[in-house]
Amino acid sequence: MKRIAFLTSGGDSPGMNAAIRAVVRCGIAEGMEVYGVHRGYEGLLAGDFVRMYRSDVGDILHRGGTILKTARSRHFMEPGGAAKAIEVMGTLGIEGLVVMGGDGSMRGACTLVEAGFPVMFLPCTIDNDLAYTDYTIGFDTAVNTVLDAISKIRDTSSAHERVTIVEVMGRESGDIALYAGMAGGAEIVLTPERKPMLSYVYNKVLAGLNRGKLHSIIINAEGSGIASDALEADIESHTGKETRTVVLSYLQRGGSPSAQDRILATFCGAKAIELLKNGEKGCAIGQKDGKIFAMDLFEAAACTKEPDMSLYELIEVLSM
Amino acid sequence: MKRIAFLTSGGDSPGMNAAIRAVVRCGIAEGMEVYGVHRGYEGLLAGDFVRMYRSDVGDILHRGGTILKTARSRHFMEPGGAAKAIEVMGTLGIEGLVVMGGDGSMRGACTLVEAGFPVMFLPCTIDNDLAYTDYTIGFDTAVNTVLDAISKIRDTSSAHERVTIVEVMGRESGDIALYAGMAGGAEIVLTPERKPMLSYVYNKVLAGLNRGKLHSIIINAEGSGIASDALEADIESHTGKETRTVVLSYLQRGGSPSAQDRILATFCGAKAIELLKNGEKGCAIGQKDGKIFAMDLFEAAACTKEPDMSLYELIEVLSM
Amino acid sequence: MKRIAFLTSGGDSPGMNAAIRAVVRCGIAEGMEVYGVHRGYEGLLAGDFVRMYRSDVGDILHRGGTILKTARSRHFMEPGGAAKAIEVMGTLGIEGLVVMGGDGSMRGACTLVEAGFPVMFLPCTIDNDLAYTDYTIGFDTAVNTVLDAISKIRDTSSAHERVTIVEVMGRESGDIALYAGMAGGAEIVLTPERKPMLSYVYNKVLAGLNRGKLHSIIINAEGSGIASDALEADIESHTGKETRTVVLSYLQRGGSPSAQDRILATFCGAKAIELLKNGEKGCAIGQKDGKIFAMDLFEAAACTKEPDMSLYELIEVLSM
Amino acid sequence: MKRIAFLTSGGDSPGMNAAIRAVVRCGIAEGMEVYGVHRGYEGLLAGDFVRMYRSDVGDILHRGGTILKTARSRHFMEPGGAAKAIEVMGTLGIEGLVVMGGDGSMRGACTLVEAGFPVMFLPCTIDNDLAYTDYTIGFDTAVNTVLDAISKIRDTSSAHERVTIVEVMGRESGDIALYAGMAGGAEIVLTPERKPMLSYVYNKVLAGLNRGKLHSIIINAEGSGIASDALEADIESHTGKETRTVVLSYLQRGGSPSAQDRILATFCGAKAIELLKNGEKGCAIGQKDGKIFAMDLFEAAACTKEPDMSLYELIEVLSM
Repeated sequence: MKRIAFLTSGGDSPGMNAAIRAVVRCGIAEGMEVYGVHRGYEGLLAGDFVRMYRSDVGDILHRGGTILKTARSRHFMEPGGAAKAIEVMGTLGIEGLVVMGGDGSMRGACTLVEAGFPVMFLPCTIDNDLAYTDYTIGFDTAVNTVLDAISKIRDTSSAHERVTIVEVMGRESGDIALYAGMAGGAEIVLTPERKPMLSYVYNKVLAGLNRGKLHSIIINAEGSGIASDALEADIESHTGKETRTVVLSYLQRGGSPSAQDRILATFCGAKAIELLKNGEKGCAIGQKDGKIFAMDLFEAAACTKEPDMSLYELIEVLSM
Repeated sequence: MKRIAFLTSGGDSPGMNAAIRAVVRCGIAEGMEVYGVHRGYEGLLAGDFVRMYRSDVGDILHRGGTILKTARSRHFMEPGGAAKAIEVMGTLGIEGLVVMGGDGSMRGACTLVEAGFPVMFLPCTIDNDLAYTDYTIGFDTAVNTVLDAISKIRDTSSAHERVTIVEVMGRESGDIALYAGMAGGAEIVLTPERKPMLSYVYNKVLAGLNRGKLHSIIINAEGSGIASDALEADIESHTGKETRTVVLSYLQRGGSPSAQDRILATFCGAKAIELLKNGEKGCAIGQKDGKIFAMDLFEAAACTKEPDMSLYELIEVLSM
Repeated sequence: MKRIAFLTSGGDSPGMNAAIRAVVRCGIAEGMEVYGVHRGYEGLLAGDFVRMYRSDVGDILHRGGTILKTARSRHFMEPGGAAKAIEVMGTLGIEGLVVMGGDGSMRGACTLVEAGFPVMFLPCTIDNDLAYTDYTIGFDTAVNTVLDAISKIRDTSSAHERVTIVEVMGRESGDIALYAGMAGGAEIVLTPERKPMLSYVYNKVLAGLNRGKLHSIIINAEGSGIASDALEADIESHTGKETRTVVLSYLQRGGSPSAQDRILATFCGAKAIELLKNGEKGCAIGQKDGKIFAMDLFEAAACTKEPDMSLYELIEVLSM
Repeated sequence: MKRIAFLTSGGDSPGMNAAIRAVVRCGIAEGMEVYGVHRGYEGLLAGDFVRMYRSDVGDILHRGGTILKTARSRHFMEPGGAAKAIEVMGTLGIEGLVVMGGDGSMRGACTLVEAGFPVMFLPCTIDNDLAYTDYTIGFDTAVNTVLDAISKIRDTSSAHERVTIVEVMGRESGDIALYAGMAGGAEIVLTPERKPMLSYVYNKVLAGLNRGKLHSIIINAEGSGIASDALEADIESHTGKETRTVVLSYLQRGGSPSAQDRILATFCGAKAIELLKNGEKGCAIGQKDGKIFAMDLFEAAACTKEPDMSLYELIEVLSM
């Protein structure tokens, strides 16, 4: 394989630049010409490609975001989108593609592979909502960012003896809430996988008050189905305790990637080059049982994850 | 003066614990007995005092929040509140009080001094909205916290080429927005002191786009009079540019205090002890022209600040 | 098992407090009385025990160091040390012990188990030099601390176009150097597992200069066998390039634990209680293949690790 | 004035890039052509100039180091150096220069002004050792960096109940040590301005031990005249207390500039442009009494600073 391209798509995640660096440098080390595509699938259709050299990816390893820019694909998923993209790549002599993104980007990658174009997929999303891999690139950084926010919020929450609801990202997956809740010592964690009744929440706050606990942190994932403002009002009305909400929002997307995310991104990027070199047609790369691995892209897209309830139980015990 | 007390009141600010440490250790060094009051003026009325020793304030210098807890005073400002508090302090033999808080706490201090009780006031609020002092304790930390958030938000804002509105605290004063905007390279800063028309905002975004600027950061202070969601909708409708809002909220209140806030708090705390020892009756302590100073409490409460428009002009030039 | 104790021993590591919290709260949840031992094995011999309750471990999850204090054991490893310690625990009715520390502490745990006393061992060291577990508690935090230092050093190293040697901890294991080197984009990593000749180092620096690379970061592990000052002089003499050394030293030991270390510590602590409850006699707890696991203590102590040379090769490719 | 240049010289300091941004954008706003000089005075002699535009200084405000590179001047201070530099600038039509650096760079600026060339000097050094200004650009960031290191070191120092000596930069000025010592709660601070006898140090450590203080932090400035290893040995021999040293070294030079440094740098840069526009011939810009100001360059170079002993006394009281 002489000429490859890569793109970042969908929501950005910390570690995308580390993956870009690995793809470019490992690709060149294998004698490939490597092209970056701007703005994800949009750029793929528009032919917005740029040749990249080793020095183009210097000093980006520690940066959040993506130097290639990213975008939600508008036209690519429409009929003929994949064919158009393959035609564009054909005219440039591109023989393989590396796609970095989340579940939407993964579906895009599938359409290209279905149409016969080799694609390697790297799991880049803070949400950790790709079932085929234990961890996605950006997740560890996002959890640490939430922890940093929790520690700041704890100062003022404790000084005012109030309940604070921290709303974190996670529409489909509650992993950010769950990991940050366990690592941050949250009393209660609300996620899409586990939506306790409101009565559970305020009763737990009341129980804490009766034990002399003067402040509590509650982590609420976007996708928990319980609106933070409703939760806030409900807790105040049932416990008489001042309650405030902080929505971390896009804060969670940025920041310098953690060591773990940089290393995961670097290994995944290197693996993508190795697989393209070996003539693989369509793979998803990730981490399973502590090891970097690759599997068939379509099988990966079909995976579903069983939530691990033992974490919720442990949080229960620890916050009793 | 043999026996003094101190309290933290209103919204907490980083550096309160540094001020507490200075008051306790300098007070004891002057041969005073020092008592901490829990939960601000509420604790003053309830007689919730605790004798504090040097070791009680060890390892707190770097902590956000306040080890004394703080509260909004409900009963103290009612008629007879001050008299009741002075009576409580009388029974305990307390001869002087140090109050740490914002403008509300300052008014509380005034009522005590009016009733003849010696009070030294320390400006503890992140908002920098006390006109008599150039800086309040906690302001520098809050600005640095906002900067840290801006740098994270800039990663994703740039990757998605979107406009991001960062809503910061500041009901009466736009200083957090103004300083963080200048130090964070924001394109536009909206504050209570300067509320540009919406047309100014979207025209500036458009001008940036025409210059090839692909993302912008706008800082909106709570008290700017322009709701962030309205601003978001307005920018999107006039520029067609994806716009998102992040509300930093209570994040800005917490965190380990910066060097500047710890030093300012320490000097102010030491000054309060010196003034009580010298028999002063009612002073506000702060920083003016780079120096720690004290002035009559009532004069301080009557000060008004002229906003410094040169900063806005400089931001204009730098973000052109 | 009705009454247990735990101690932290040897060099402290970030996450020890998270493990303490889990042991105390999970132990109490199982109906046990839990005692903390001060200053490691020294306190075990001295009978320096303290009963711990749920509230004693509040607000420590995010703190570096150990609330129990730690010490290198002077007397415990002498003949009769273990017997003496078991006698002390016997008088207090302690039926099981949780030991948190590194390899020296593990040997101490073995002597207790040999003498018939049940001990669960938690791998708490930043060095990641316990072969039986993929990761030790504190390692991830230390690597992130080194990364933060590298990013600061890179600013000035790049501004001055100089070579900077960053000396990190790791007498027996080069993992901190290796992971931080890969995640920090270091050009060269020197470890106990791989000690390149000096000629390799300066030739690589020269090759970089010839490619137009104006500054380099070299990570040197304590145990690499190459003294940093000798390396500094050697590079300067062969390349004529200004070279400076920064020794990170104890900086790497402290700091708030990362999410990964807090979660690993929490799971390991919970596992220790579960195993004691089940009547296990002597286990080492750790993480293998991404999962928390336990194995026979003596087998664990006998494990040896094969260094993974693929990381070195990848660093080669990426820094070429 | 139609065409100006600027350079960064000597040791880099956080905020240099913020000053560069202000000089470029304010200069262009005044209708000037602005040129950056690479590698300080070396580049001035070598004619290593580059025209800079608004977009060239985008996204640098928050970066440590300097995008222009910096160097110690070898040839410039030799006879004829200034004349040669002025000749080079003459051929390029450069009519004014902005110099950013420390005391050595200031002397270089003086030689240019003596030779009749207009120069505006910005105080860029972390050491705060320029007597004419209350603060230098980079000082606040360096102090906060040292504070962050102290808080990490305190974790392990406390866990091991040991004395830790933190060696910080400052050959001529002890301000980093003094401010970080006060803000970090150090027990003892050793500086060029105040070099206590060794007996004072170990006696204070002993006194602390007798008060039950189990660990201490001592800040030792490079220029204190007391070598850290000698101090370490001396404390151990007189107190029997384990003592360790951490040398922060170049860590203190890097990192993203603090809010205060970015704002100071921005105002100083803007002021330099204003002064050049007004036809000033040679000025040093800085902050006095909380305000940005400028004074005659030669008078500034002749200033000497009286150390403020009140800070030492306050540290005494607080660490008693």
